[in-house]
Amino acid sequence: MDFLPKEPMEGKSSGPSCSGLNLVAHPRAKSKVWKYFGFDTDADGCILHWKRIYCRVCMSQIAYSGNTSNLSYHLEKNHPIEFSEFVKSNTDQMREAFATAFSRIKTEPTVSQQQSQETYSRQSLDSENKRHNDLTVAIIKFICEGLYPVCTVEEPTFKSLIGIVDPGYSPPSKSDLAGKMVPEMYCRTQNVVFNELSGVMNCGIATDLWQSQTQNRTYISLFVHSINYNSASGFSVTNKCLKTFEVQEDNKAENITRAMYEAFVKWGITHKVIGATTDGSVDVVKACSLLDLTVEMPCLGHTINHAMAEAFQLPRVSGFLGCCRKLVDHYRESAMYTEKQKQHGLAQCTLIADQDRSWFGTLAMLQRLKEQQAVISMTLVESSSSHHFTFSGSDWALLEGLIEVLQPFKVVANMITSCKYPTISMVRPVLHMLLNTTLKIKEGDLKEISMSKEIISKVLSSTYSQNSQLSQEIATFLNIATFLDPRYKKLPFLSTQERSKVESIIIEEAKAILEKQISERPCLDDFSLVSDEPPCKKQGLSGESSASTSVQDNPLAAIFCQSDADQSQEELHAQVVEELSNYKSQRVLGLNEDPLLWWSNHAPLFPTLPKVLQKYWCVPATSVPCHRLFSSSGTFLSGKRNRIPLALVDMQVFLYENSRSYYEPEPCEDEFETVLETNSSLAQH
Amino acid sequence: MDFLPKEPMEGKSSGPSCSGLNLVAHPRAKSKVWKYFGFDTDADGCILHWKRIYCRVCMSQIAYSGNTSNLSYHLEKNHPIEFSEFVKSNTDQMREAFATAFSRIKTEPTVSQQQSQETYSRQSLDSENKRHNDLTVAIIKFICEGLYPVCTVEEPTFKSLIGIVDPGYSPPSKSDLAGKMVPEMYCRTQNVVFNELSGVMNCGIATDLWQSQTQNRTYISLFVHSINYNSASGFSVTNKCLKTFEVQEDNKAENITRAMYEAFVKWGITHKVIGATTDGSVDVVKACSLLDLTVEMPCLGHTINHAMAEAFQLPRVSGFLGCCRKLVDHYRESAMYTEKQKQHGLAQCTLIADQDRSWFGTLAMLQRLKEQQAVISMTLVESSSSHHFTFSGSDWALLEGLIEVLQPFKVVANMITSCKYPTISMVRPVLHMLLNTTLKIKEGDLKEISMSKEIISKVLSSTYSQNSQLSQEIATFLNIATFLDPRYKKLPFLSTQERSKVESIIIEEAKAILEKQISERPCLDDFSLVSDEPPCKKQGLSGESSASTSVQDNPLAAIFCQSDADQSQEELHAQVVEELSNYKSQRVLGLNEDPLLWWSNHAPLFPTLPKVLQKYWCVPATSVPCHRLFSSSGTFLSGKRNRIPLALVDMQVFLYENSRSYYEPEPCEDEFETVLETNSSLAQH
Repeated sequence: MDFLPKEPMEGKSSGPSCSGLNLVAHPRAKSKVWKYFGFDTDADGCILHWKRIYCRVCMSQIAYSGNTSNLSYHLEKNHPIEFSEFVKSNTDQMREAFATAFSRIKTEPTVSQQQSQETYSRQSLDSENKRHNDLTVAIIKFICEGLYPVCTVEEPTFKSLIGIVDPGYSPPSKSDLAGKMVPEMYCRTQNVVFNELSGVMNCGIATDLWQSQTQNRTYISLFVHSINYNSASGFSVTNKCLKTFEVQEDNKAENITRAMYEAFVKWGITHKVIGATTDGSVDVVKACSLLDLTVEMPCLGHTINHAMAEAFQLPRVSGFLGCCRKLVDHYRESAMYTEKQKQHGLAQCTLIADQDRSWFGTLAMLQRLKEQQAVISMTLVESSSSHHFTFSGSDWALLEGLIEVLQPFKVVANMITSCKYPTISMVRPVLHMLLNTTLKIKEGDLKEISMSKEIISKVLSSTYSQNSQLSQEIATFLNIATFLDPRYKKLPFLSTQERSKVESIIIEEAKAILEKQISERPCLDDFSLVSDEPPCKKQGLSGESSASTSVQDNPLAAIFCQSDADQSQEELHAQVVEELSNYKSQRVLGLNEDPLLWWSNHAPLFPTLPKVLQKYWCVPATSVPCHRLFSSSGTFLSGKRNRIPLALVDMQVFLYENSRSYYEPEPCEDEFETVLETNSSLAQH
Repeated sequence: MDFLPKEPMEGKSSGPSCSGLNLVAHPRAKSKVWKYFGFDTDADGCILHWKRIYCRVCMSQIAYSGNTSNLSYHLEKNHPIEFSEFVKSNTDQMREAFATAFSRIKTEPTVSQQQSQETYSRQSLDSENKRHNDLTVAIIKFICEGLYPVCTVEEPTFKSLIGIVDPGYSPPSKSDLAGKMVPEMYCRTQNVVFNELSGVMNCGIATDLWQSQTQNRTYISLFVHSINYNSASGFSVTNKCLKTFEVQEDNKAENITRAMYEAFVKWGITHKVIGATTDGSVDVVKACSLLDLTVEMPCLGHTINHAMAEAFQLPRVSGFLGCCRKLVDHYRESAMYTEKQKQHGLAQCTLIADQDRSWFGTLAMLQRLKEQQAVISMTLVESSSSHHFTFSGSDWALLEGLIEVLQPFKVVANMITSCKYPTISMVRPVLHMLLNTTLKIKEGDLKEISMSKEIISKVLSSTYSQNSQLSQEIATFLNIATFLDPRYKKLPFLSTQERSKVESIIIEEAKAILEKQISERPCLDDFSLVSDEPPCKKQGLSGESSASTSVQDNPLAAIFCQSDADQSQEELHAQVVEELSNYKSQRVLGLNEDPLLWWSNHAPLFPTLPKVLQKYWCVPATSVPCHRLFSSSGTFLSGKRNRIPLALVDMQVFLYENSRSYYEPEPCEDEFETVLETNSSLAQH
């Protein structure tokens, strides 16, 4: 822990409210300093202000920003006795705090479950007709999993569609759906998600900040990610949506903190969360700090999108793209242009507009312009009405230069979009490739191109590179995640020194895991019900732990075998080093092989490393599914989300997100538009 | 016509293109000066530049902005012979221009109709099963009339819903829908709209400018309104959507002009359009000028919304509303607040947030706060955590003051929303009431209230009142529209002089109509097929024309009867004055009676006035249906429109708008939200 003393903002809090303080420690507190400080809480035990804590000794109010160094500084300066006690102390305070919060919330879903099943069986008794029941279920699923507003069922055209289907059947009303069926569906899905999460050891969270433009509201959807193991199917990925909440204008960071913490407690992941992947919004990042999430991973997709947006705002690039858009607008539906294509026997494809202003849209526009260069040049020369367009040789050169810069990003986007396993291990290699190949300024680069490369490089490296202290941690985290990928474990882009740093951190992590396993074993009975440890651990999947189980079953154990607790530090170290060396000596995987499948097949060989893997790979590389970042399926989704009423947003987004696989692409609007343009122009003429 | 000479921008157009000019007169030209000027056109006869015309005499290029005064000035200055010819001339040039444009386009729909019917019967032969065919039709209607994106049919949940319905049936694919079925449906609806519009004599248009936020595009939907007569059912209102087109960034006004003109020609309404109702966007207004639409009516709804937005931006009002929103956010889901309500046995209604920032949303928020004043005050006093809120007596006074200003606007909004006939006659009385009662600054008004009243008054009167020349015309138009409403014909808010001005304009209008009828009668045979005159005219609904028909049937007509053409000006005048006096002497209708029903019942008594009515009442008071302006059904619709792909926007919006009655309310999102909040909070707890 750092002891960088900061001048804390202190001040005696005044009179009567002072004695009325109901202080609690930070619920995710790791430092024992929290024994002497606490947050004020309301009657329900909910923390009132996440940025303000009180010293239990002198009741001073101290500003808190996710860092405990000023707390120990306060003790050292003002309370020497408590400070020395703190230094020596070794209390169980933290665990108590967790247990309290945990037990209080854990019972909730069970109640809902009972309610939901009761209502459901009653309903099926009432229903005279299985077919009508099936129809109702299908309509509920259509609304919930298709993310439609409940008022859809009362639209005349939906009603008449259902009327054709079965004139004797009347669909549920919107208030039935909103008040009963959607909440029931939510409860049932919630239970499924609970079961999936109960065995999770470590998880990463991701925040998706989005806006409902028609409602003028900002929401955050919270996702959880983890790598699970089960001896039958090996490693698999769990990605779930936990909650969607509105972001209020005031005290954004604090409100986000509160909402996220409530979700952590509700879903029992408070002390399982390793890190968060965010799009970098100030308030979300601040909330992650307040929640003491050590890894704050930037979203790769948002970073790339942001870098491109910066480059496209360079005056000369922006001006050039403006010209391209005018050209596209002018010729896209021009009869003369189509005529020219026919005359010269060229493909009848229309120009593409990048009206969503995404960089992949812009790339598609530029590429289509390049393909059509011959027709465009001829049309420009011949048409007198378009003499206000000039598109000279240097313009075409700039167009090609831009394509050359953007194309590798498209390849990267496709690579991570098509990937069906965690991509966190890809981030470092991809960044290295982009920064050292694509974005390297070459002799002969046009001014606009070299400036674009420079600005894109700057955004990427300032987000991920080793300059600031924050990014240093992220860089190390990414190096470890990459090393654990059997495709990339050689880490060719690191120095020998950096590689050995990665290995020594992994050794420490692995040792800590082994030690924790050993220390927790005696109290297994006390904690087995609320434990975070995955059930697989008790099934003896790893060589080490299955050995110890059989040892305890053997009646001679007490006489001949050392207890695990006696295992010395040296033995632990040697064991881990051997495991690591074994991992390194395995065949390097081909770049297109599945690393998670490899780990599933090799799990019996490695007792500890997969646990390190589970910790590092649960942090996702992007804060929303990749296919939403690099196609218009994000637009498609936002069109749907926009229409869900406030009261149902949380439940409906939850149901929508958890009804599909994380990697399953959603419908897209642009690919589709291209198909349509041809079709409907045929139909119209 | 005004002869205010403006210095025209002239310049000889250069060399070869000069001789290549293919000039056409303004297609809506009324002035005979157009004989000497024209627009340049392309090979298809489409006008190339709406802001640039050429003198046919000297080929000079002249700037055009919808005003012909600089054209006659150009003649007077440069071409004295042509100028004197112009002054004397009396050619038929205009009519020729219309006939050309008209005949060229009129055949189009017939072709589409044949195609559509062919395809349709083929399809029904292919279909083995009537039920499957019915299902397909219902799905097409669901998509088209429900304004769903065609990709809905390929969503997994929609497919499984249809699978439950009939496992042997597979719904049409999205490309079938987009490429075939939607266009067919469009063609059929188009024919229906054509038939409805063919009998229209005068019409007003309205433009709805809207944005697709997810697609980053701006569209205009063009609507047409008219008052039709049929002897069986009397007067009825036709409101149709004609076209939706994208507004390009460049040359907005010109592109809008071109798109609107194309729609006029396509639908055969070029010379029937009396005026346009717009939301006041600069480019749309400019386009209406270029199209020489004499009446440019501001939209009452947009004007009120705009005035409110201005008032809410006053620093002190804006600050106050901010406080109210914070209060609402804080207590809306507060357990303590609900507790307080229970303790004091008060109604358990939640506070209302105005997150759409509409003034009626804000009014609802303020009214609910007022209702809950007791609970809020108690909670504020007792809760220590909310000491940062202050809401003093003066705040409550301001809240009441604002409600007092807003409430009458809500009454007006409800009044025009619930109205099932044209509301143009209501505009003037409503404005008078608001300006002279609601917005009158009273002694004792708080500073914020008097400032709000002032700014709202300013917006309303600058838009509608008699100050500028433009608004003078609008004010006169509105006075006439009001006078023709048997509820408001007393015009109590006008001076005697103003009232007699209204009457003399009506007399002139009526005389012109009579003269036109007389002059057109001889050439009835030539024009009967393409004529604008409603079929009802030939059925002899009015006393005057049925008399003349029977006269021509009588073999003695040639000897005894004067032909209509001989009817002198004096007789015409006397006839119209008598009709007007008859109208004025009729019973004044109650404020809640239906004026259109009155006219339907009294049509036989009034040969001419109903035609004046048809001309004035076809201009709508609001540019979009009222229910969209004053509720969240606009939000509902924009959520739906947002999702329609570019290629289908025109067809799908056309089908959506024309599948429902103009006055039929669409689903709303807010009313609904209130229901839900109660429901779902019950379900969650």
